[in-house]
Order: sequence, then C-alpha cells, then structure tokens
Amino acid sequence: MEHYRPILLVTMGDAAGTGPEIITKTLTDEGIRNGCRPIVIGDADIMKAALKITGMPGRVRSILNISEAEWAKDTIEVFDLQNIDLGRLIRGEVNIGAGQAAYEYIKEAANLCQQGEADGMVTSAINKESLNKAGHHFDGHTELLAKLCGIPNVTMMLVVDKLRICHVSTHVSLRKALDRVRPERILKVIELAREGIKELGIDNPHIAIAGLNPHAGENGLFGDEEVKYIQPAIEEAISRDYRVSGPYPGDTIFFRALQGHFDGVVAMYHDQGHVAAKMLGIWRGVNVTLGLPIIRTSVEHGTSFDKAGKGTADPRSMNEAIKLATSMVMNRKGVDL
Amino acid sequence: MEHYRPILLVTMGDAAGTGPEIITKTLTDEGIRNGCRPIVIGDADIMKAALKITGMPGRVRSILNISEAEWAKDTIEVFDLQNIDLGRLIRGEVNIGAGQAAYEYIKEAANLCQQGEADGMVTSAINKESLNKAGHHFDGHTELLAKLCGIPNVTMMLVVDKLRICHVSTHVSLRKALDRVRPERILKVIELAREGIKELGIDNPHIAIAGLNPHAGENGLFGDEEVKYIQPAIEEAISRDYRVSGPYPGDTIFFRALQGHFDGVVAMYHDQGHVAAKMLGIWRGVNVTLGLPIIRTSVEHGTSFDKAGKGTADPRSMNEAIKLATSMVMNRKGVDL
Repeated sequence: MEHYRPILLVTMGDAAGTGPEIITKTLTDEGIRNGCRPIVIGDADIMKAALKITGMPGRVRSILNISEAEWAKDTIEVFDLQNIDLGRLIRGEVNIGAGQAAYEYIKEAANLCQQGEADGMVTSAINKESLNKAGHHFDGHTELLAKLCGIPNVTMMLVVDKLRICHVSTHVSLRKALDRVRPERILKVIELAREGIKELGIDNPHIAIAGLNPHAGENGLFGDEEVKYIQPAIEEAISRDYRVSGPYPGDTIFFRALQGHFDGVVAMYHDQGHVAAKMLGIWRGVNVTLGLPIIRTSVEHGTSFDKAGKGTADPRSMNEAIKLATSMVMNRKGVDL
Repeated sequence: MEHYRPILLVTMGDAAGTGPEIITKTLTDEGIRNGCRPIVIGDADIMKAALKITGMPGRVRSILNISEAEWAKDTIEVFDLQNIDLGRLIRGEVNIGAGQAAYEYIKEAANLCQQGEADGMVTSAINKESLNKAGHHFDGHTELLAKLCGIPNVTMMLVVDKLRICHVSTHVSLRKALDRVRPERILKVIELAREGIKELGIDNPHIAIAGLNPHAGENGLFGDEEVKYIQPAIEEAISRDYRVSGPYPGDTIFFRALQGHFDGVVAMYHDQGHVAAKMLGIWRGVNVTLGLPIIRTSVEHGTSFDKAGKGTADPRSMNEAIKLATSMVMNRKGVDL
C-alpha cells in the first residue's frame, strides 16, 4: 500500500485565470509527483503557454485517454479536450468560451472518476460569470458536482492546518442561510463532517457545532435558533453516539478548534467558517466536497484575473489540495482493502 | 506632554469572575504603571482576596475619593464602593449582588470620567446573567455606557494587532442584524470608525467596508443588501471625501486588513468581525466603545467563571486595553493642546 500513487485528475479551471500557471508550478514539484500520478483535464495549448509564462522546467504531453499516461520525468500529462482557441483568449477577462471549456473539464473529470478511471479530482478556480454566460447556472463547483453526481445533500469542508470546517449552507444570501439552519440539514452536515474527517484519518472525530447568533444566542437572549433548531440536532446526533458538542459561540469555536479542542466544526453559514479559515492565509486553504461518491478537493481561491499571465500566482493552495486528495485516497484504500 | 500619565479608572467587573485576579496582574506590571495612573473602581476586600489568590507582590489601598490616590510603589489604589459581602460570594457562580456591584462600578467610572476626574475608563468582564438578575437589562457594556452617557449611536471597535474592526450591530440576533444593515447606520459607523481610528494616531484612515452576503453578494447573485444599502453608504462617504472602499467579501477583508491594506474595517454584524479578531487569540483583543464623550476600552473576553479563584487567568487583554486607553488619551491630549 505505501507505494500506491493515486491517479488524480486536475481540472485546468478558467483558461483566462491563473489556474494553468499554478498547475505548472504544482505539477513540476517533485514532492507532489512522488505522492500521486496527476493528469490535467484541460487544453494542451493553454498548458504549453502557461509553462512559457511561468518558466517552470518541463514539457506538456497531450493524451486523449487516461490509459496513455506515462508520467515520465518532467512531463505534465494533459487529457486534451482541445476546447480553447488560444489566439482569441485574453487573459484576465470574462470569456464565454473559457467558461464553457471549464465546465467541460469538470464534467469530464467527474465522469472519469465515477467510471473508476481515476482515484479523485482536484479542481482549479473557475470564473462564475464566464460559467453563467456559457449557460451553466451554478453557484460554484460544489453545486455543479452535486448535480453531475445526482446527490442533493453535499457540503463544503474547508481545511487549513487543524481547522476542518463544514458548512450548513454556502452560496446563498445570508437571509436565506438563516432558513437553512434546521435540524435535518444540521444533522446531515454533522454526518457528512464525520465521514469526511474520518477520511482524513481521524477515527470517531469530535465535531463542535457553532451557534448562529452572537454568543450562540446567550440562552435565547439574541435569537432562538440555537434553542429551536441547533440544540435538537445536537441531541439527536448524541443519541446516535456521535461525538458532538455545542452550540458554541461562533467567535471562539474556530480558535479552539485550531488549538486542537475539536477535530471539526460545523459552521452555520458561509462567512462564519470562511472568515475563520482565511485568517490563516488566503492562499493556504483547501476545499473538499463531502457527500459525493467521488473524492474531490479544490483550491480555496478564485481565478485572480488581475494576476493572470504574470507567472506570479501562488501554488500553495493547489499543492495542499493535491496532498489532501492523495491522503483521502490512501485512507479510503486502506479502509477498503 | 511626554511625561503625562493618564488617570485611568479600571472597573473591577463581576466579583465572582476572574476580573479582580486579572487586575492584580496588570496593575502590578511596571510597564503598565509607567504609562498611566490606574485606579480600580471596585471593592477593596475583593481586591485583597484576589491578591492572595494570584500571589502578586503588592498591597491594596482603599480610597474614597480620586484625589486621595498617590500611586505609591507596589500599591493598587481602589476607589472602594464597599458593595460586596466577601463572606457570601461564591466564585464562579451567578450572583445578584455581584451583578449589582458590577453595575455600580461602571456607573461610577462613567460619572467620574464625565466630570473630568479621570482621563478614561477600562472595564473588566461582567456576567450578563448576574447583571440582568440585578435588574439591569443591558446586553453588554456598550449598550449600558451608551445609556449612561445619553448617546444613542455608538459602535464597538475591536482592536487586535493591525485589525481595527467596527460593527454595524453587535448584541442582536443575526436576523435582526440583517435589518440594521441600512445606509444611515453604516454611514454613522464609518464616521465613528474614522474618528476612533484617528484617536489611535492614524490620520485620514482608509476604512474598508465588508459585504453582508457570501462573496459580498457576487453582484446581486447571493442577496441584494450590498447593492441596495451598502454601496449607497460607501458612495455617500466618498462624496464626503472619506477614504472608504468596498464592499469587499467578508472572508478576505480581515486578512487583507491584517496585512496592512486598510486601517480599519466595518463589519456588518457581530460574528463577522469577532470571528476574525479572535482567530488571532482569544486573550489578546481589546474592545473600544466609539461615539461616547469619554474614552473607554475593555477586555475582549468574559468572566471565565470556570477559572475564577484559581489565579491562572490571562491578563494580556487587560494589559492591551490599558495601553490602548493610554495611547488614546495621549493622542486626544496631543490634539487638544
């Protein structure tokens, strides 16, 4: 087992953004290549251009089938969808063609994973406006992959250092997010968090549940959602013998998790969890979709149009996303064998 | 001017909590005493007991008038309200008498500051349940001081390192907080933030405004409060020649502020700002009330009933609160002279 190197599909993301450049940095990193066998799902011409921009040592090899991949030294294997017209691409600008192409990389990668041709997928940033203009109305990867896999109940987990944060809701207005705070959904997210964190190698994880209101409502003084919805979900989880506690005030729960008091945190809405994670550095977090039949991790930043074409984009989040996917595959294999 | 040492009134907070113990650590710190002339507004018997618990070197001197203070070496001056029955106090438990006493310390300190007998006040933690049981229905110091000073529009600013965060609302449910996000209130908080940050010695500060929704609403995709309420407030502020920008996504604005991109941030609700500040350490932040006629800073933690009587409570937040009040007094004096 210790020599198995997972096959990971790395989607190229939006061609007008920094995704291709970041990939050239990550996929020429010896440490990364020693841990897994990566294949870019993208466009070979764009990847060649990105190599020139970043000046990373290596070459691009275009393949049309996963089985053709050889992972020779200094070679970036690209499953080549040939769906971008390099001559017409303007980096840093919204582009319908790039939006459509980005959608196709994700769909292809999800299909290949579901067919068992790869062990997992790692996604680069997409531009939501380009995606929408190309006719794909999804609020992000999480929602798109849920649709592609036919799974309604998924959740986004953010991982940075010891922080593992799952969200009751993500890409909805804060007003709508309040209405998502219901026992059924909270309980589902607790279950997904437990399973997801186990896949990171932590048995029977202790999951802490955040409150929704300031000071977790201070016994009903500032809002009653804790009493009406969160507490019942926690009680039900405990009755199932899950290691769960809370609700804790949102402002200290993440710091306590970082200090090792909990293995994971359920955040009640997007910013509650994301503010905490991004205080540790914008370029370090990894995003994991829990609840899918496939393993999927992602960078936790956007396309950074302002940096596209400059070769300066930071690959740390992509590095971490690949390492995390690798370790999730290994844990899952370890359990399955 | 450089030798002026402000007279700061340090309220003792809830006698059943860690406030008195923390004060014995801070007020015997030579660095703190070199910068200011502190007087505890509290109960001398409780302070003597706290000195025994923490074992800090020093003695308590009971005074009944500010003018009696001498600040002799190793002496903690206590403006002695004699309002706690030490024999009946159980540390770590809600106590109506302690709640009433804590209220009286705050009221006395605010009065003395308004009368010009001191330069500012620094508050220890109170227990909201004890305060409420004693018949004082305030959600915290901020609301109580606003009432005592007769000022309706104040705001809480959190200060940790380079983070200076002002809040559109604090101690209300998240649902009610959504309704506070209106141009008039946002503009008022921007003004208070500008004035408050100037008092920290930063001229013409650049204030960044957070969005309310995920990704600051992503152009109306996830909620319209940014377009309807926040943007108009920003435009009005700019038309007044304030250095203001935004709305920025809530999850990255604080990290950027910490890196020095902005001098201050306006958060749209309690947890948005508090999650960010407390990721830097629960025991380090300082709370400042802006908009009052008096200078007031505070520890940014609670009474820690679980640690009361053990002598282990961390004085860092109190140390920082006193240093910040000192520097605010000096800046204000510098401007007035």
